[in-house]
Amino acid sequence: MMIDGRKWRSGTASHQPIFGLHAMSPTSEVSNLCLGKTVRDSRTDIIGSISAVSSSLIVGKAGPMVHTGACVASLLSQGGSKKYGLTWRWLRFFKNDRDRRDLVTCGSAAGIAAAFRAPVGGVLFALEEMASWWRSGLLWRTFFTTAVVAIVLRAFIDLCLSGKCGLFGRGGLIMFDVYSANVSYHLADVPPVLLLGIIGGILGSLYNFLLDKLLRIYNLINEKGIFYKVFLACLISIFTSCLLFGLPWIATCRPCPADTSEECPTIGRSGNYKKFQCPDGYYNDLASLIFNTNDDAIRNLFSKGTNDEFQYSSILIFFSTCYFLSIFSYGVVAPVGLFVPVIVTGASYGRFVGMLVGAHSNLNHGLYAVLGAASFLGGSMRMTVSLCVVILELTNNLLLLPLIMLVLLVSKTVADAFNGNIYDLIMKAKGFPYLETHAEPYMRQLSVSDIVTGPLQLFQGIERVGNIVHVLRTTKHNGFPVIDEPPLSESPVLFGIILRAHLVTLLKKKAFLSTPVLPGGSDASKQFSAGDFAKRGSGNSDRIEDVVLTEEEMEMFIDLHPFTNASPFTVVETMSLAKALTLFREVGLRHMLVIPKISRGSPVVGILTRHDFMPEHILGLHPLLVRSRWKRLRLRFPPLSKLF
Amino acid sequence: MMIDGRKWRSGTASHQPIFGLHAMSPTSEVSNLCLGKTVRDSRTDIIGSISAVSSSLIVGKAGPMVHTGACVASLLSQGGSKKYGLTWRWLRFFKNDRDRRDLVTCGSAAGIAAAFRAPVGGVLFALEEMASWWRSGLLWRTFFTTAVVAIVLRAFIDLCLSGKCGLFGRGGLIMFDVYSANVSYHLADVPPVLLLGIIGGILGSLYNFLLDKLLRIYNLINEKGIFYKVFLACLISIFTSCLLFGLPWIATCRPCPADTSEECPTIGRSGNYKKFQCPDGYYNDLASLIFNTNDDAIRNLFSKGTNDEFQYSSILIFFSTCYFLSIFSYGVVAPVGLFVPVIVTGASYGRFVGMLVGAHSNLNHGLYAVLGAASFLGGSMRMTVSLCVVILELTNNLLLLPLIMLVLLVSKTVADAFNGNIYDLIMKAKGFPYLETHAEPYMRQLSVSDIVTGPLQLFQGIERVGNIVHVLRTTKHNGFPVIDEPPLSESPVLFGIILRAHLVTLLKKKAFLSTPVLPGGSDASKQFSAGDFAKRGSGNSDRIEDVVLTEEEMEMFIDLHPFTNASPFTVVETMSLAKALTLFREVGLRHMLVIPKISRGSPVVGILTRHDFMPEHILGLHPLLVRSRWKRLRLRFPPLSKLF
Repeated sequence: MMIDGRKWRSGTASHQPIFGLHAMSPTSEVSNLCLGKTVRDSRTDIIGSISAVSSSLIVGKAGPMVHTGACVASLLSQGGSKKYGLTWRWLRFFKNDRDRRDLVTCGSAAGIAAAFRAPVGGVLFALEEMASWWRSGLLWRTFFTTAVVAIVLRAFIDLCLSGKCGLFGRGGLIMFDVYSANVSYHLADVPPVLLLGIIGGILGSLYNFLLDKLLRIYNLINEKGIFYKVFLACLISIFTSCLLFGLPWIATCRPCPADTSEECPTIGRSGNYKKFQCPDGYYNDLASLIFNTNDDAIRNLFSKGTNDEFQYSSILIFFSTCYFLSIFSYGVVAPVGLFVPVIVTGASYGRFVGMLVGAHSNLNHGLYAVLGAASFLGGSMRMTVSLCVVILELTNNLLLLPLIMLVLLVSKTVADAFNGNIYDLIMKAKGFPYLETHAEPYMRQLSVSDIVTGPLQLFQGIERVGNIVHVLRTTKHNGFPVIDEPPLSESPVLFGIILRAHLVTLLKKKAFLSTPVLPGGSDASKQFSAGDFAKRGSGNSDRIEDVVLTEEEMEMFIDLHPFTNASPFTVVETMSLAKALTLFREVGLRHMLVIPKISRGSPVVGILTRHDFMPEHILGLHPLLVRSRWKRLRLRFPPLSKLF
Repeated sequence: MMIDGRKWRSGTASHQPIFGLHAMSPTSEVSNLCLGKTVRDSRTDIIGSISAVSSSLIVGKAGPMVHTGACVASLLSQGGSKKYGLTWRWLRFFKNDRDRRDLVTCGSAAGIAAAFRAPVGGVLFALEEMASWWRSGLLWRTFFTTAVVAIVLRAFIDLCLSGKCGLFGRGGLIMFDVYSANVSYHLADVPPVLLLGIIGGILGSLYNFLLDKLLRIYNLINEKGIFYKVFLACLISIFTSCLLFGLPWIATCRPCPADTSEECPTIGRSGNYKKFQCPDGYYNDLASLIFNTNDDAIRNLFSKGTNDEFQYSSILIFFSTCYFLSIFSYGVVAPVGLFVPVIVTGASYGRFVGMLVGAHSNLNHGLYAVLGAASFLGGSMRMTVSLCVVILELTNNLLLLPLIMLVLLVSKTVADAFNGNIYDLIMKAKGFPYLETHAEPYMRQLSVSDIVTGPLQLFQGIERVGNIVHVLRTTKHNGFPVIDEPPLSESPVLFGIILRAHLVTLLKKKAFLSTPVLPGGSDASKQFSAGDFAKRGSGNSDRIEDVVLTEEEMEMFIDLHPFTNASPFTVVETMSLAKALTLFREVGLRHMLVIPKISRGSPVVGILTRHDFMPEHILGLHPLLVRSRWKRLRLRFPPLSKLF
């Protein structure tokens, strides 16, 4: 079952979701990745995720849920799927970049909301980690989405109360309920909590570091072909299985506690006390953690009134197993998430710290496990508010909130001293051109004109068809400035910017003029409707190679004016690069025109796209900056880096 | 006591905090309002707020808390207060616009966190309602602030457990705890909840409408002088007192319930059952609501197991009293907040609906009161996520979350059909130039060049001192484009933008040149340190009127180049006004240069400030647009508007 599930998956799809990645970029890779094959992908995601989770790999289901949500949203934004007969006319209103981005963000939020039954946490997670830019309209849309998710979830839990839907209704809306009316902690409890935060920060940044290195190795293996991919997946799966079945033998049997209300020991059902080869009246504590689903393991670790359940050695073994297995399991071809493994791992060392502090603390071990999970989440994902709310919604313990905030503060601060957050690292390892929000310090030394490269491709307001075809065929640019030059005007005039997709549409319709003179009255735009320029699904976009034109048509002209965006965003060439990046990211742009500071000659000196702002590109042009002192302060361990 | 408190207040300070208003604007009115008199203001805020709340006016304490937090933050950002000897050298790092804005946002978040003991809600409220622009760094800073607030709060509650601090420790971190482990609701409970949402939306928008009208009337009265102000405050206070003492006489005495664990009836202490002129064994339900603090009234309304406590008539009387008294109390000179009155009012009609639905529902009346409070908050404040989290943190009932989300969705949607949110309305009524985030539909019809007005004031790169003094004295502009013209360059070159404050600093230091020729090597910037250009507190900024120059000096020159910001944000004159507004707001600008589309002549055609984007200014220039069909869809009731 386990290997089948993986095989099936590896045979049909070759990409793998990174938790929320697809919604992050300011442009539409998300759509590029999701679209076209969306329906199939969502399906494979769901099946692959079920297989991976049920195979007891240390992986989470949140990632695939988010990916599924985002893909369904993306599907909606391209007007449904023609192949599967799922199209509606009203969906055409979403066929534009902004709505597509918004829908994908909403879809991801819905995924989180469904995975953790945390609707508010879903909204915040989508905004803090996934959305590349934020506006109040988007907040309202995501809130709407997750509210619907919450209501539907609640309704299904209601319908499932009779037990018809397996374990779905169990736990209700709160997955790991640790509520207790009289949680009390005092100042003496703060030092161990601070310690947890520091440990979480260090372990979290190390986790990110190792995962990053491993992903790069996996990339090398995966590039060699499907056979290697499947082999890798099988290898890790078999290794995981052997390890998990073998490990509980290390732990000694312990007598069942006398005062528990739970059944002890148990076989073949979820519970705190697993029998695993022990005599009656005894249980194996390591097996109680390992032979459960991840969710149940978390529940066991979080549970109160079980302070003596685990031995030090079992918890430590479980912690290191989870820590490394979750890293190894992430890179394989199955669609997996990071949230649950991180919570399991964090909870195990949290519980360990709780056991060490022991009776000196007012908090029970279960609450230490919650704080440990928070610290590890903070240390690897580096979010604040959204993690707070997600943990609150998962555990329903509001009284613990000040401590959770403290732990998150400390672990994030510690971890930020070493490296970046896990999603950024994964995106870099995967090679996605993700543009960070903040400007690197060396960007303050550069002006925009320092990074403008290459010959600028301009179009005249009334341009020869052959020219357009030539430029489109020989370059890969997606936007072109449109200039009116003499004799159309006295001096060169910046008219606007036109997109490649729109040019191809124009060429396909062959709305040509025979002379370069503007005909009074006749307007080519009347031949087009807004739908002609609607955003297509990425698989379906028109390509210039498909346009066939005669020699005669090549000599004709197009009036670009009605189709040009006359409101291009511009920066002066002396603009600081850091400020230009801020503008680019805050407003969510794709193209930015660079205009000269001097009032003479061409009104445009260059065009900037996301590619031009990528640190690799800038440092490639200005290699001296690599060694400049203008770097972000970050602790580095060269020996450790050399090791890999 | 009550009137004294108000008098004292009205005698010393003349402005009044609007909940979070000061942190909203993209520029620094917040500082302008807060600075200079900050220490005194915070003090008056605290005292005034205590007086107003203890005088049982229907007002909240959150507003003054937020204002105090923001003012303290603003004080820090201007480097402390010299007058009170509170200065530190390290504070000089915050002497710039961005840090000041951030600090003020953090201060407001801390205010909310302290007022409601809702740290996460505070962060979200600050971001959703107060911050005019959002970035991840700000999120981290506000989170840090409220985390510290939460920990300090928790520590003080810990220290106060022995009861030394009055009621401070009561209720712990959760002000209105309505937790119950087995809240169950089913599909049948959805219709009354939807009804609550709709009522909340209608009542909320009506509330905003009435408050807006009343504030305008109060403004007229307050303008007449301090005597009128005090008179108004006394009048409302006396009216409130008489009303509140008189009203309970209407209600009939009810027998104490037999099965309650609470004392009944009580005199002179907070509790569910107030005696108020009733015989022993009886209580007056209206007095139980009115003769409590607002907090205790909310607790009574939210409490479970008291389904039969109130009569229909008492609840209705209490609701209408709160609804109208809170409107009347808001505009007076005392520093008051809106949150608590809105919660009381909402809870009362929520409880009423709960009583109407009665036994048909699975929810108890207390939970209906919670939902009612949520619906009224949503209907008047129009926030979503932050209200959800604040309510969650106030009531500690996570299981109710789906219903709260539903209620907020419905009430916000309904209310948005009528008018804007309460803070925007108040700001407009107070005449603050607040720039909204979204573009009005008619802005899409205009281009930037349509709203550029007035003669443009330019400076040369090397400018005559007399010229600068003249321009500074005759205009009120805060930013001036700097151009290099022949003979300094061959064609006019856009060099950048210089601020008025910096020009005044230059004039004061008298770093003049005797000839307009750039001296090789000698650089005036060496005479200055960064501290000279640091942002001042608004009371302390240098004014051009204070600069005294001789005739001789007036004929000298200044080299502006080293002091000019060479990275001005620019837009082409053909840019759509809606897009320019987006840029202005998203990036948080103060000045934006308008550059010509044609490459000849002056490199700048105008400069845009916030004032130019204000709808009043635009509609003043293009009066035809007022009647154009490009308006936001909103239901209007002309007869109702004419009434006032």
